[in-house]
Amino acid sequence: MSGDTSEPLRIGFLGYRFMGKAHANALARLPMFFPDAPDTERSVLVGRDESALADAAERLGFERTATDWRDVVDDVDVFYNLGPNHLHVEPTVAALEAGTNVLCEKPLAPTLDGAQEMADAASESDALAACAFNYRFVPAIQYARRLIDAGEVGDVRQVRGSYMQDWLVDDDAAWSWRNDEEMAGSGALGDLGAHTVDLARFLVGERTGEAERLSGHCQTFTEERPVEGEEGETRPVTVDDAYSAQVEYESGAMGTFEASRVAPGHKNDHSITVHGTEGSLRFSLERLNELEVMTGDARGYETVLVTDEDDPYVDHWWPPGHVVGWEHTFVHENYEFLSAVAEGEASETPRDGGGEAAGAGGDYHPNFQDALAVQRVLDGVQRSDDAGEWVSVD
Amino acid sequence: MSGDTSEPLRIGFLGYRFMGKAHANALARLPMFFPDAPDTERSVLVGRDESALADAAERLGFERTATDWRDVVDDVDVFYNLGPNHLHVEPTVAALEAGTNVLCEKPLAPTLDGAQEMADAASESDALAACAFNYRFVPAIQYARRLIDAGEVGDVRQVRGSYMQDWLVDDDAAWSWRNDEEMAGSGALGDLGAHTVDLARFLVGERTGEAERLSGHCQTFTEERPVEGEEGETRPVTVDDAYSAQVEYESGAMGTFEASRVAPGHKNDHSITVHGTEGSLRFSLERLNELEVMTGDARGYETVLVTDEDDPYVDHWWPPGHVVGWEHTFVHENYEFLSAVAEGEASETPRDGGGEAAGAGGDYHPNFQDALAVQRVLDGVQRSDDAGEWVSVD
Amino acid sequence: MSGDTSEPLRIGFLGYRFMGKAHANALARLPMFFPDAPDTERSVLVGRDESALADAAERLGFERTATDWRDVVDDVDVFYNLGPNHLHVEPTVAALEAGTNVLCEKPLAPTLDGAQEMADAASESDALAACAFNYRFVPAIQYARRLIDAGEVGDVRQVRGSYMQDWLVDDDAAWSWRNDEEMAGSGALGDLGAHTVDLARFLVGERTGEAERLSGHCQTFTEERPVEGEEGETRPVTVDDAYSAQVEYESGAMGTFEASRVAPGHKNDHSITVHGTEGSLRFSLERLNELEVMTGDARGYETVLVTDEDDPYVDHWWPPGHVVGWEHTFVHENYEFLSAVAEGEASETPRDGGGEAAGAGGDYHPNFQDALAVQRVLDGVQRSDDAGEWVSVD
Amino acid sequence: MSGDTSEPLRIGFLGYRFMGKAHANALARLPMFFPDAPDTERSVLVGRDESALADAAERLGFERTATDWRDVVDDVDVFYNLGPNHLHVEPTVAALEAGTNVLCEKPLAPTLDGAQEMADAASESDALAACAFNYRFVPAIQYARRLIDAGEVGDVRQVRGSYMQDWLVDDDAAWSWRNDEEMAGSGALGDLGAHTVDLARFLVGERTGEAERLSGHCQTFTEERPVEGEEGETRPVTVDDAYSAQVEYESGAMGTFEASRVAPGHKNDHSITVHGTEGSLRFSLERLNELEVMTGDARGYETVLVTDEDDPYVDHWWPPGHVVGWEHTFVHENYEFLSAVAEGEASETPRDGGGEAAGAGGDYHPNFQDALAVQRVLDGVQRSDDAGEWVSVD
Repeated sequence: MSGDTSEPLRIGFLGYRFMGKAHANALARLPMFFPDAPDTERSVLVGRDESALADAAERLGFERTATDWRDVVDDVDVFYNLGPNHLHVEPTVAALEAGTNVLCEKPLAPTLDGAQEMADAASESDALAACAFNYRFVPAIQYARRLIDAGEVGDVRQVRGSYMQDWLVDDDAAWSWRNDEEMAGSGALGDLGAHTVDLARFLVGERTGEAERLSGHCQTFTEERPVEGEEGETRPVTVDDAYSAQVEYESGAMGTFEASRVAPGHKNDHSITVHGTEGSLRFSLERLNELEVMTGDARGYETVLVTDEDDPYVDHWWPPGHVVGWEHTFVHENYEFLSAVAEGEASETPRDGGGEAAGAGGDYHPNFQDALAVQRVLDGVQRSDDAGEWVSVD
Repeated sequence: MSGDTSEPLRIGFLGYRFMGKAHANALARLPMFFPDAPDTERSVLVGRDESALADAAERLGFERTATDWRDVVDDVDVFYNLGPNHLHVEPTVAALEAGTNVLCEKPLAPTLDGAQEMADAASESDALAACAFNYRFVPAIQYARRLIDAGEVGDVRQVRGSYMQDWLVDDDAAWSWRNDEEMAGSGALGDLGAHTVDLARFLVGERTGEAERLSGHCQTFTEERPVEGEEGETRPVTVDDAYSAQVEYESGAMGTFEASRVAPGHKNDHSITVHGTEGSLRFSLERLNELEVMTGDARGYETVLVTDEDDPYVDHWWPPGHVVGWEHTFVHENYEFLSAVAEGEASETPRDGGGEAAGAGGDYHPNFQDALAVQRVLDGVQRSDDAGEWVSVD
Repeated sequence: MSGDTSEPLRIGFLGYRFMGKAHANALARLPMFFPDAPDTERSVLVGRDESALADAAERLGFERTATDWRDVVDDVDVFYNLGPNHLHVEPTVAALEAGTNVLCEKPLAPTLDGAQEMADAASESDALAACAFNYRFVPAIQYARRLIDAGEVGDVRQVRGSYMQDWLVDDDAAWSWRNDEEMAGSGALGDLGAHTVDLARFLVGERTGEAERLSGHCQTFTEERPVEGEEGETRPVTVDDAYSAQVEYESGAMGTFEASRVAPGHKNDHSITVHGTEGSLRFSLERLNELEVMTGDARGYETVLVTDEDDPYVDHWWPPGHVVGWEHTFVHENYEFLSAVAEGEASETPRDGGGEAAGAGGDYHPNFQDALAVQRVLDGVQRSDDAGEWVSVD
Repeated sequence: MSGDTSEPLRIGFLGYRFMGKAHANALARLPMFFPDAPDTERSVLVGRDESALADAAERLGFERTATDWRDVVDDVDVFYNLGPNHLHVEPTVAALEAGTNVLCEKPLAPTLDGAQEMADAASESDALAACAFNYRFVPAIQYARRLIDAGEVGDVRQVRGSYMQDWLVDDDAAWSWRNDEEMAGSGALGDLGAHTVDLARFLVGERTGEAERLSGHCQTFTEERPVEGEEGETRPVTVDDAYSAQVEYESGAMGTFEASRVAPGHKNDHSITVHGTEGSLRFSLERLNELEVMTGDARGYETVLVTDEDDPYVDHWWPPGHVVGWEHTFVHENYEFLSAVAEGEASETPRDGGGEAAGAGGDYHPNFQDALAVQRVLDGVQRSDDAGEWVSVD
């Protein structure tokens, strides 16, 4: 679908639950806080349950609903794939083949093959294909990237990422698609680990290169879970409750990664630490306005509240010290994504020929090539866990 | 102004800068997250600089603008007084006399006399008169109040509040109306201390009673400041850069309060601690999703991330661990305020006759009586500082 | 008593409980860690209960015991007054009159008159008269002082000190001499506040001058307490459970102070914060190896582990990161004190004529003049609390 | 060597630097704080450099010196092997063969073969053979063990340990034996990782069983380092600067471990976290008086200052809130070790026949079997790193 940027971008969502709300909110907030963002129209919301869908459309501000994504992917300017993982491949590829820009939630696909198929479709399309790794858009993370790019931590030697949640700690927490390999691909690994691997890649990737080889470990602590609303029924858990991995990057830097859905006391604790030859940085999502910085002559970590006017995105919001929340990452992400879409739509010709390096969408990151690189790591963790050996990532 | 709740509440704002943006954002977000909130219409934005005003109106979503509040206060259902402190009294009183509901920013007025006049107007009006102490609406603060009400900390013996900022630490930071006694009434005391005194009162007031007597201290470290845009010009600073106070409550509980605009390293650090016979609580605005709780058999403070589904307001937002920001306090505040307004508008008769206890507006808090109680403390601090002695608060 | 430094300094202790153990341990550890400290001999331990005394002497390494301090004060080179506050004045004055060096625990005396008498005796004696404000000797505090002296925080504008404990939070916690005005002089004020006031004076006193005027508040929450071992018996509590104070220093800097023995969750939380024109510092005794430093271009507090080789006293102990404990402050204190004693004993003539500025003991700090300055503040707090007005301190 | 417990235990040390000082201090402090500990005599200090040795002996309180450990191992009741790792095997085995009790520093040996030889010698000896994993004796760690044993965290699912230091971050930090494979066996792995693996085993081993298989990764960032005092000379670094490992325990629990000597901002940051089905615990050595506890109905981690009278070892020291330091772990360790020695010496017959489960020394832990179990893990990490595959640990 091509569009004219003097008209609002028509947007379609597949999915209206958690991620649907997060992105709809982001779209709704852009005009007041990012007035130079492209105009958008929440055109159509896609789902299967017509009644729930109608309610959601009203709440989230969509003009109409549809129950088949096939009717939508070539009828909008931008298609947001916010469905469960097993619905990522087919609709996304169809959209890209129709020339419709796509923002797809992470992980890109349940399997590496699916992700490769999507990345191929992106490479052959003139449309922009973005993956929704929203944590790149935390101001403190962008600030960390600035510091790393400026050489403040020197050469990167170690990166450590962990993502701890606790919602499956009880054996009788209900089964959901997130516990099913067919639908989700993996558990903590794909749901949480994908974020961590991407974040590490975003922060230090230009200095470490890609993950070259890795060793992985996945564990399932609860073998089956009750089905909500069906007394006495259970379904098997076919994904990991927790994973860990050791990574060696091209540069020789070491990475250690971990995630868990069974870590009591941790609600959404996505942490990343970088050690370089000149300094260290630390971040935790539960205190997302802060970055701990140890550089230069410092003797310890400095707790920086990343809310000053010249901090990334902050001038759009509030004065120093007036903290933002988790949802703001979506506003920033949508701002960048939609701006790139509008720029692409405005140019007559395909943006850069769709070479593999960038896919379509010019310089926009994280795109499907980025997401594919992440998926290679996720796949490597599973292969390594199966094989009991270190595996190459490529 | 009376209204029909089947129609949207027509809202007028005086002021379109920091607080204007915060409240406009709150109104804009209500439909998606608090669908049972009354419908509102951002009808009219009042200011003096027509060009800036027009820009702001477009950005903040107002239908029209006005340059004289007199034309507005009886032409809307709700009047938000978001102007500088010296503009609080006259327009607010006029609105209340016209039967228009008011939300007025804090502190209520530059002087106790002004605040009294406003509270009197509120008492005589059928309209709701609310003061915008938004920090009452932090989920962690509401949760703290729940714990205190449930007796979890026992009898309250000590409360300590401090509000530290650093934006005036340099002598050459620019002069603004906030440095002028005529316009602001006081400095850190009214701007920051008002929040702290109200928060303490909200949290522990039912257990300690009101502040009975106090001792205060105000200090100005920088006597004059440069005027922006007027090279070489300075204006005198006629308010405090920092204040401190000791309070004795009716119950015998002790309060210690402090604020500063010259505390390096603190951007917006509003902290409050409560010690009771059974436990303690601690909160800091820079980590506003957290409450530190020491109760029962605990041996130390537990860091609670107040983001669970059954935490105050949280079910309207995101899953556990997905933190909210400073601005969410305004959404909650507007939700409560507008709901109370709508309820009042729906009832035929004046809500409770406007007795002093509640003013109009039924049970809504913080109302003008609450704000007047805060102002008595602020006034006491200044009187005590002048007199060099402890003073009664009443 | 004069001594010959080629002989060990003979030391007598009055008191063998908490402080007796702390100082005996310090003496015992000096040879291994501070080999240039003067040799000492734990000669005589003074107490009333002969059986407990004998046990303590064996445990603490004393050669003999005595039940009357009068027999001891002129028979040793150094007299440590570690008894309860009401035993500070008479034995200390007697020792000083006998030319015996004294280390007296804090607060100097139960009353300002007593303290003045002791300071006078010190001024007239050739002996060294030191007060045991051990927290001056925390490495992180010494480091803070270095930073302040080097101008790293600029001019000091605000100092805030608080000392929170919880051991009297229950009404049925047992009565002790620390609850009795006759014996202790005051409660949290003298026991805890003395430390805070001294620490503030040590850190910022050269920049702020002395406390000039202050406002104080004392509160007793539990009026009587049970007597241990005497069922059903209680005694009245005649001291404060908590105090607060506001101070104005000669320079115009503001001080706020507070202590409590009824703050649940705080065991020994002695905290001090300094805000200056160029930076801030923060310290808490419960994490005594750390100093939080915000200076220069820093954007927030840096958590410095003060355990490097060139940090104060650290080269005597362990490699970086190997933390010390509370008791190490006594080792440092005894090292400094005994070194000053030895230096004084080695000189033929009185050290500096006993001028008021330093008392005897040359430049040793904290001496009795320092302790008297602290006592003036404590006394001021009580006078202000009684009078309900700000009082001058002098 | 057998002894008579009515006589002091005669003790010989091999090594007088960092560990020599730490253990000598511990011995010196026992009488005052642990009066029921066996009497000891610091008999002989062994080293090669006679002059440095003589100085050290005087400072550390040894009666005499010796330059050949062969003259010592059968001439004392207890032999402390505090030398570099490559001196652990031969003297220790000789001592055990002579029936002399041994306390050997960690890691037990540079290689698994060496460790096995030592453990065999211990099994065949009547003497007690202990390994100096001092961090087991931190009060907060003992308290953590109590909680885990009491089921407070339920079944253990995940354990995470990391030990971060920064002293080799600069390429020009000097070479030492700790950088040499021959002398040290490994780098961060053996020096730091040994502590972590032991601590995990101590805390959760009874619930997880032993490490069953693991994957390891070692990295050297600086290939050669300058030799101190020899300008322009360098020596190769033949050990790891950092390692990481993933472990699967017999129970299916997951372990992740990591250490680094090149982590800027971390001086001695030994951290361990345990997640179970009912709760979590966290500890860091840089704040060693604290344990973070999340159990029962808690909503987050509670920061417990483990300094109450009924906390492990605390009644020997100071009142609540008066924190201890790193060195106190050695006092506790020596107390337990020497008490076990004295008990063994007092019994006529060999303590328990030297079965493999406990070696000699009855129930004393950590003994050489414990240390051997740790060494198997260290060895596994190196084997896995060499082979590029997961390896069995046995």
